[in-house]
Amino acid sequence: MYQLVIANAEVITGAASFPADVGINGERIAAVGMGLQGERVVDAGGCYLIPGGVDAHVHLQTPVAKYVSSDDFRSGTVAAACGGTTSVIDFVHPQPEQPMLDALAARRAEADGRVVIDYGLHMNIPVWHADHRLDRIAKVMAAGIYSFKMYQAYGPLCLDDARLYEVLRALARHGALPILHSENGPVIDRLRSEALAAGHTAPIWHARTRPATLEAEAVGGALELARQAGAALLIVHVSCAESLDRIAAARREGQAAYGETCPQYLFLTGDKLAGEHGERFVCAPPLRHETDHAALWGGLARGELQILSTDHCPFTAAEKAAEPGFDGVPGGLPSIEARLGLAHDAARRGLLSLSRWVEICCTGPAHLFNLPRKGHVAPGYDADLVIFDPRCPVEVSAQGLHERVDWSPYEGLHLTGWPRDVFSRGEQIVRDGEFVGQAGRGRFIAIPPVERAGRPAGLA
Amino acid sequence: MYQLVIANAEVITGAASFPADVGINGERIAAVGMGLQGERVVDAGGCYLIPGGVDAHVHLQTPVAKYVSSDDFRSGTVAAACGGTTSVIDFVHPQPEQPMLDALAARRAEADGRVVIDYGLHMNIPVWHADHRLDRIAKVMAAGIYSFKMYQAYGPLCLDDARLYEVLRALARHGALPILHSENGPVIDRLRSEALAAGHTAPIWHARTRPATLEAEAVGGALELARQAGAALLIVHVSCAESLDRIAAARREGQAAYGETCPQYLFLTGDKLAGEHGERFVCAPPLRHETDHAALWGGLARGELQILSTDHCPFTAAEKAAEPGFDGVPGGLPSIEARLGLAHDAARRGLLSLSRWVEICCTGPAHLFNLPRKGHVAPGYDADLVIFDPRCPVEVSAQGLHERVDWSPYEGLHLTGWPRDVFSRGEQIVRDGEFVGQAGRGRFIAIPPVERAGRPAGLA
Amino acid sequence: MYQLVIANAEVITGAASFPADVGINGERIAAVGMGLQGERVVDAGGCYLIPGGVDAHVHLQTPVAKYVSSDDFRSGTVAAACGGTTSVIDFVHPQPEQPMLDALAARRAEADGRVVIDYGLHMNIPVWHADHRLDRIAKVMAAGIYSFKMYQAYGPLCLDDARLYEVLRALARHGALPILHSENGPVIDRLRSEALAAGHTAPIWHARTRPATLEAEAVGGALELARQAGAALLIVHVSCAESLDRIAAARREGQAAYGETCPQYLFLTGDKLAGEHGERFVCAPPLRHETDHAALWGGLARGELQILSTDHCPFTAAEKAAEPGFDGVPGGLPSIEARLGLAHDAARRGLLSLSRWVEICCTGPAHLFNLPRKGHVAPGYDADLVIFDPRCPVEVSAQGLHERVDWSPYEGLHLTGWPRDVFSRGEQIVRDGEFVGQAGRGRFIAIPPVERAGRPAGLA
Amino acid sequence: MYQLVIANAEVITGAASFPADVGINGERIAAVGMGLQGERVVDAGGCYLIPGGVDAHVHLQTPVAKYVSSDDFRSGTVAAACGGTTSVIDFVHPQPEQPMLDALAARRAEADGRVVIDYGLHMNIPVWHADHRLDRIAKVMAAGIYSFKMYQAYGPLCLDDARLYEVLRALARHGALPILHSENGPVIDRLRSEALAAGHTAPIWHARTRPATLEAEAVGGALELARQAGAALLIVHVSCAESLDRIAAARREGQAAYGETCPQYLFLTGDKLAGEHGERFVCAPPLRHETDHAALWGGLARGELQILSTDHCPFTAAEKAAEPGFDGVPGGLPSIEARLGLAHDAARRGLLSLSRWVEICCTGPAHLFNLPRKGHVAPGYDADLVIFDPRCPVEVSAQGLHERVDWSPYEGLHLTGWPRDVFSRGEQIVRDGEFVGQAGRGRFIAIPPVERAGRPAGLA
Repeated sequence: MYQLVIANAEVITGAASFPADVGINGERIAAVGMGLQGERVVDAGGCYLIPGGVDAHVHLQTPVAKYVSSDDFRSGTVAAACGGTTSVIDFVHPQPEQPMLDALAARRAEADGRVVIDYGLHMNIPVWHADHRLDRIAKVMAAGIYSFKMYQAYGPLCLDDARLYEVLRALARHGALPILHSENGPVIDRLRSEALAAGHTAPIWHARTRPATLEAEAVGGALELARQAGAALLIVHVSCAESLDRIAAARREGQAAYGETCPQYLFLTGDKLAGEHGERFVCAPPLRHETDHAALWGGLARGELQILSTDHCPFTAAEKAAEPGFDGVPGGLPSIEARLGLAHDAARRGLLSLSRWVEICCTGPAHLFNLPRKGHVAPGYDADLVIFDPRCPVEVSAQGLHERVDWSPYEGLHLTGWPRDVFSRGEQIVRDGEFVGQAGRGRFIAIPPVERAGRPAGLA
Repeated sequence: MYQLVIANAEVITGAASFPADVGINGERIAAVGMGLQGERVVDAGGCYLIPGGVDAHVHLQTPVAKYVSSDDFRSGTVAAACGGTTSVIDFVHPQPEQPMLDALAARRAEADGRVVIDYGLHMNIPVWHADHRLDRIAKVMAAGIYSFKMYQAYGPLCLDDARLYEVLRALARHGALPILHSENGPVIDRLRSEALAAGHTAPIWHARTRPATLEAEAVGGALELARQAGAALLIVHVSCAESLDRIAAARREGQAAYGETCPQYLFLTGDKLAGEHGERFVCAPPLRHETDHAALWGGLARGELQILSTDHCPFTAAEKAAEPGFDGVPGGLPSIEARLGLAHDAARRGLLSLSRWVEICCTGPAHLFNLPRKGHVAPGYDADLVIFDPRCPVEVSAQGLHERVDWSPYEGLHLTGWPRDVFSRGEQIVRDGEFVGQAGRGRFIAIPPVERAGRPAGLA
Repeated sequence: MYQLVIANAEVITGAASFPADVGINGERIAAVGMGLQGERVVDAGGCYLIPGGVDAHVHLQTPVAKYVSSDDFRSGTVAAACGGTTSVIDFVHPQPEQPMLDALAARRAEADGRVVIDYGLHMNIPVWHADHRLDRIAKVMAAGIYSFKMYQAYGPLCLDDARLYEVLRALARHGALPILHSENGPVIDRLRSEALAAGHTAPIWHARTRPATLEAEAVGGALELARQAGAALLIVHVSCAESLDRIAAARREGQAAYGETCPQYLFLTGDKLAGEHGERFVCAPPLRHETDHAALWGGLARGELQILSTDHCPFTAAEKAAEPGFDGVPGGLPSIEARLGLAHDAARRGLLSLSRWVEICCTGPAHLFNLPRKGHVAPGYDADLVIFDPRCPVEVSAQGLHERVDWSPYEGLHLTGWPRDVFSRGEQIVRDGEFVGQAGRGRFIAIPPVERAGRPAGLA
Repeated sequence: MYQLVIANAEVITGAASFPADVGINGERIAAVGMGLQGERVVDAGGCYLIPGGVDAHVHLQTPVAKYVSSDDFRSGTVAAACGGTTSVIDFVHPQPEQPMLDALAARRAEADGRVVIDYGLHMNIPVWHADHRLDRIAKVMAAGIYSFKMYQAYGPLCLDDARLYEVLRALARHGALPILHSENGPVIDRLRSEALAAGHTAPIWHARTRPATLEAEAVGGALELARQAGAALLIVHVSCAESLDRIAAARREGQAAYGETCPQYLFLTGDKLAGEHGERFVCAPPLRHETDHAALWGGLARGELQILSTDHCPFTAAEKAAEPGFDGVPGGLPSIEARLGLAHDAARRGLLSLSRWVEICCTGPAHLFNLPRKGHVAPGYDADLVIFDPRCPVEVSAQGLHERVDWSPYEGLHLTGWPRDVFSRGEQIVRDGEFVGQAGRGRFIAIPPVERAGRPAGLA
């Protein structure tokens, strides 16, 4: 007799799918079996039961230029939960002169009372910390941080090759996971200046000044540096076929190279920037082409890319349109709620298997970021579970979503399949699509170090 | 209360590993959970619990020239079982004029009273049947055959491109899975004749007359034909980096291309053919180089190759040495018992993850060949389970193995890790390494057709 | 004082271009210099002076099915000459039971009294000769044949891999140059049968049943066989990017792999087959896509392809349209006269340099086929020279050309640049675009063997 | 009747080889012909006659750290002449605050009274000039400079990506040719610091801290920047297979990408740095492996690399050994005199054709750098000619060479073939291997701009 049984589901994991019941005691899964008895029983007949989604790349209540991303830790995690995501990983942004541990404490203070699901944090390594604070990595890791993010773009955040190499070396020594925003920022800055000087201020120039070649060039260079440094490396928000090719080639050489992509690079093209409200679609790297969509789906299906995150960073339509030129638009798109639904619809259309869907959205990110007890349907794991109705028709609209933003890049898109009920550590927090949990119930996930972070591709 | 509980194991599946108990009722797994109660309890503390292995490529009591492979369906499946394999797939060899269904019945008659584990069958398509019997495919499939094997080598078996294309088309129409022995047989035959005419009869000339380029050329050509025919294609016993490259490239193009390799191509090199008893190591494709080993391990780790089978086809030392020239040696090596142990040892040394070990040896072949209820540890699956002791030291020797052959290609090799107990449909058939089951208890696995056999790479 | 001086030209060779006069005594070039004095002086001011073109692939008065190509050795070589070509290489087609030397004598008898320029011959190796006549290669070479052609398509001509390998070995032993029509004929035959059985008889089905993948697959396989056989190999009429890639890859591996393409694969697309009089555009390999044009021009510019020939094989509009289905159309296009003009126009548009233009049309084929004293503007070479007016506007039309065929695939195409005067061994045979020579003045070019035929790529 | 006739030679050009005489009037070639009459006749029977070599990369009397390269413009050009080189291109090194035209004038003042052959100059673009002086490019070009060199390494010279892009854009606008020292300097600097901090001061650490991956990464990145900037780009001293692959790939994409290599990267390996006097072999990029030699020869043979220069930068044995650590060794090797002999010997051994030998040593660099009237044997060209004895046995030794340096990296190497007589603008300056000319007779070569500098690969 289990405290809670989710019965009659088609369980889908990264390895297989099969009909079963799941028994839950307290916060954990106690059994996966046939005919389990429960004090409470939730019938999931006709639905999939999958591990709660893990979105390893979100930016909640995050300052960008003079704006702050419009989802705070409460509204953002509510939207995530309604979309079937039960863990997110956000970022710590240490300021100049601010010790990393202080920044971590401050960031946790922003999140802890608000989050409705569990969350982890990546630590940013800006220039100043790259130069002077690498000796603090061990302490930061002891405080529950496993992954550190660097940038090859964005002015003051941008690490040059020598600094990037130095940080990669330091992270490799400590067994931390380096993650990287990879675009050739300095050259992009020149292209932007040239475009603006020539009066090209329309949103499409955001894409024209960030060509795929400059992303791929940065990715290729960073992978060589990681090889030289003996470090693993995750390239985030891979947007184009050329970057994928570099990652796949590094993996074929045995390197511990990983890649993440996001729904916007799989469903939207740069044409959006040339249309009405083009400014809303400003994000970096920019939206690309349909040929890139096809390449990236292939990369996800074959395992050359391991995870699908959102880079969720919403701004309101008014904020997006406040400045006249593309360089004044706060960058970022909302995607946190539709991620599983979008990817399921692609699986339904044959672009990847259902197991691979679960792998890239749930199990893969939990595994890659070493989240304890997350991402799988098996005894001992946290009872983070999603009852997903594969036949539910959905028309995506800002109004229907729980994100705190008044537009959606997927507005009007018809999908089949959406989360019905969501459980976080055994507690039901979404019922029939509506949030029923409490703010602040989520917990910080302290991530322990991994024995061998720089393990070769294929061993993740 | 389950009839049988395997307790305290570290369960390893293709998706994850976690401590759990497994409860079994009758022939099936009933639950995977914590603290399960059983009428009978087998303690697996300190051991892995994995799905029973699936060896999708064996040749038991099979005539080759004037010999018959030395393991019959009893001895061969006992050895398989002791090595942790609970399903094998052997072949039907229809003779000229012999209808495929008759050949199937005859082959089942050879196996049914002898097998100790479950078995499936591939149907060979020799020239004669390629020309005249393709209209029988549906009936053969209705009799439980899902996979059909063709040869690009071996004289009378060898299909030329036009026939190969025709068979691929027919199989694609029926949703069957084509599998292929891919070497350029006609050119190899010329090289053999030249070598023999020049008096080169030593075993090393077996390898010299079957160069990797002629395997890769055949693989590349066959994949193009499969693309043209809209057919999936599994290349069996991939032996060299060049062939792997062709398969990986086809998969990157979205083709439903699959690859199998075998322990001999991962652990042994062609040098064996030049050493003492070199004739024992005659098999086709021939043993290659250490650089090929590295490439093939990478292919298995990255998913470019999906399954590890054995091509088990043993002949005694005396049979191997009976004829003076390499062309008179019956081809084939024994590997059926050491497969899981060899691959685990490689995982232990870091060449692939434990999950990937289970995937290529158990779950992957069950999935690729659509074996119902095989290859996974989850409720509803057959209770084909292996308690694998990862610390057990083993020195491989013919004497210690259960194969009915007086030598082993791995003689003297030290491994760490070996199956301890093995269960087949809930019945324990190996205890502490010794076979305790009954001949004839195994069953023929009738494989149902798959909805979409030609699914793109990554969807398998 | 030279017998003839061509003065004030811009001499263009494979290495450079420079203003100079050319002095000629008898049949040979005596000097290239400044201010040369001549008994007769032809002013070439404002024009290029280039070596006479070498068209290494023509089919004059050649039986194809129940037709004979409409240009005989006289009309065809007149057209060639008017187009700036002063040497052609045609084919000997030995019939079953006919010794190769007899066939050579018969073919020379057809040509000798008719040709107006010098000509060489390739020897075809059909199946029957591949099986029984390879011991005659030395005698055929002694009679002035250096290159031997095989087919991987075309029913009775088609050599399977074993025969192809055998012939390649034999040719390599003798230092002859193997040349190959590379398409997977047996599979194409199946596709054709399928298409016809389904009632698809329109010309476009000629292209649809000869896909690029089946050309590339054959090219790749043949190159592997050549590598195995230690033979050089020229792939003729390369039509697609995929085949080019195989040749380039083989060259990067150091193989003596060569490639020819033709104007039709650089200027025409398969769409022609779907248009009015689509049947006229039936040739094999079929016309492809614009992306292939771009790839092939790149291959010519970079040296991955070495020569531009025509595969000239004209049939009248009535012959082309005589049969209702695509399979009844005699294959082949006329191109012999426009070759230099077409390629020059491409150079003018920046697709390749003028030196490379001369290289692929004149020097390269002379060099690759070892034609003595042909293909270059330097002392001692035959005075085969073309005064080419780079500003001459031309609208291509069947009426304006000298080919004996009532249509042109390039009808209506506007080019800039055309041959003005042409000299063959010192004798002017074209003046202001009109033929002024004599039938039968051309000579058979007996080609001596080359010391090392199988020299690596880059050494040709 | 010519003033000078070189008679009975085998003329070798980039396009062909043929026996001929060459007639010279004044400084220019007047005719290439048979039986030319001369006031003076030099018999070249049994020898090759080739264009004078062009060494496009030399560093004469150049300050490096606290040393100055030991060959001044006199001794260095005498050595060049004796080795068959009749044009060199050296560098202008503008200092901070020094206008480029002033630096050019100063450099010409150092050279003009000393050079015995003609010379051109590349202009260095150090950081300071990249930031503030790009508006002077037109004036510098008007003064006879066509090529501008940037560095991705070497501390103060090192341009970061943004600067490199900016300079490439500016040069592309002016039709100048960018040339680049491509290694990831900033990361190499870190590796050097790490090595030195660990006490690794031996010469082999020079190579270990400059790995091929960091060269290839820089090459790949620079080529992407050049593509983005619409600029041609010549990568100098390509040392490894990985860099070659990047250049070849860019060329296949249609980019105007060029590559130079040097004898040291074709004949010497990094093992030299671990041997006696290892410090002498310090140069950057460092010496690599035999597999790189093979790859680079292939690249030269196939045209992926266009020119063979020396990067001649000699220091005496004492200067090389003056400092204890590898970081104190002045970098550079002497090669100016042996270049043609070394490359001829490779051609003799079958690594490239004689025409390609002439192309990479003479015609190619003259063409790529647009040197007027240099690099070819044809009327109108400067009579810069070399009578090369292909059978002359040579044992390379510092004593036998004319370089002003007391050691040679090729000491003891046996070659077959060496220049016998050398002519510069019609004047004989080397007779039977000994220099017979006058210091100061050489002239500055003012290079005019080229119409289209950024012409695609294959059009050079």
